[in-house]
Amino acid sequence: MERRGLLYIVSAPSGTGKTTLCKQIVHIVPNLWHSVSCTTRQPRPGEEHGREYFFIDDRTFQEMIERQEFVEWARVYGHWYGTPRKAIADKLDQGVDVLLEIDTQGAAQIKKKFQDGIYIYILPPSLKALRTRLQMRAGDSAEEIARRLKKAREEVWSYREYYYIVRNDDLKQSLKELESIFIAERIKTKRLDIGWLEANFILDKEDKEGESP
Amino acid sequence: MERRGLLYIVSAPSGTGKTTLCKQIVHIVPNLWHSVSCTTRQPRPGEEHGREYFFIDDRTFQEMIERQEFVEWARVYGHWYGTPRKAIADKLDQGVDVLLEIDTQGAAQIKKKFQDGIYIYILPPSLKALRTRLQMRAGDSAEEIARRLKKAREEVWSYREYYYIVRNDDLKQSLKELESIFIAERIKTKRLDIGWLEANFILDKEDKEGESP
Repeated sequence: MERRGLLYIVSAPSGTGKTTLCKQIVHIVPNLWHSVSCTTRQPRPGEEHGREYFFIDDRTFQEMIERQEFVEWARVYGHWYGTPRKAIADKLDQGVDVLLEIDTQGAAQIKKKFQDGIYIYILPPSLKALRTRLQMRAGDSAEEIARRLKKAREEVWSYREYYYIVRNDDLKQSLKELESIFIAERIKTKRLDIGWLEANFILDKEDKEGESP
Repeated sequence: MERRGLLYIVSAPSGTGKTTLCKQIVHIVPNLWHSVSCTTRQPRPGEEHGREYFFIDDRTFQEMIERQEFVEWARVYGHWYGTPRKAIADKLDQGVDVLLEIDTQGAAQIKKKFQDGIYIYILPPSLKALRTRLQMRAGDSAEEIARRLKKAREEVWSYREYYYIVRNDDLKQSLKELESIFIAERIKTKRLDIGWLEANFILDKEDKEGESP
């Protein structure tokens, strides 16, 4: 039996450090591919087309919706975000695990279709800590920070929809927890390769005779 | 809300390396206590009373059964094995996680009472590898090795009763997988401390005012 890839979905209130964690975890966990989403928002300083996002214009985004090229899409803070379908399906078919870094709206859409996905929520240590982080991040206006914080306050409670909670207090500890989720999910009994089991634990006649006392 | 400890149950066919793994994992995972069972079998070379087992005589064992001091007990290879109840209950009440290293019969008894336990099965890489390991282990007669191997061949299929499977091919890798199970289980959403959440994510009036744009 060919192994099919697992789908890991990671969400977090804005400013929680989700992007940093997701960028690093793919270097720690083997056989894991980080899906790149499309967005109509402007790149932030340091972001690169095709790495953090595919930065596309509104018209291209609408055309992709019409051609059903997104597995989910949503409007967040006045911009469109969408997850391209084909690349993900290809990776899963190849037996590669896929990491989706998406917002709570997107995750809710995915969850309707993929109950078997592994849903992970990142929380900041506290709302106070989150405010400090948003204020320190470059490129956002005071108004945008206030808007994000208000939204984060509501989004925290989406945690119920996820299977695991990572409290992102210390980066190293959070990476260790994320890695543990990825490893533990892969060795769940329901994912065991029965072909491997049969090949190694069903003896042929010769083996059996060698074992008799 | 006080955190209650989690109960981890580890089983494996005889000779799979379960004891080595369990001995080491308690040094890696914090806040984890390895329960010590009672047995009427003789100590193997290097084993110590109160560390690997409490080595007790048949009469003491029967008295403990009568006083209902075991959470489970079973006769394996002609000897009695039992898991003392009180020490485990105390640790769980104190919020300490407990590791039970028991055979498949014992695990099945525990599972009837503790559905919420985390059941982990260790498998050898193959039956051939298992035979080699049993032959290399000191202190067992050829007859006992044959008996253990025959039993192991049947016990492999008990894997279905467990939630995770660790293939013990490489000790370091197996320890990493075990550790991941312990960590991932602790951060499942259903174990989240709601008190912590409320304390850090529900703002008082002053905080809210500070956030308005």
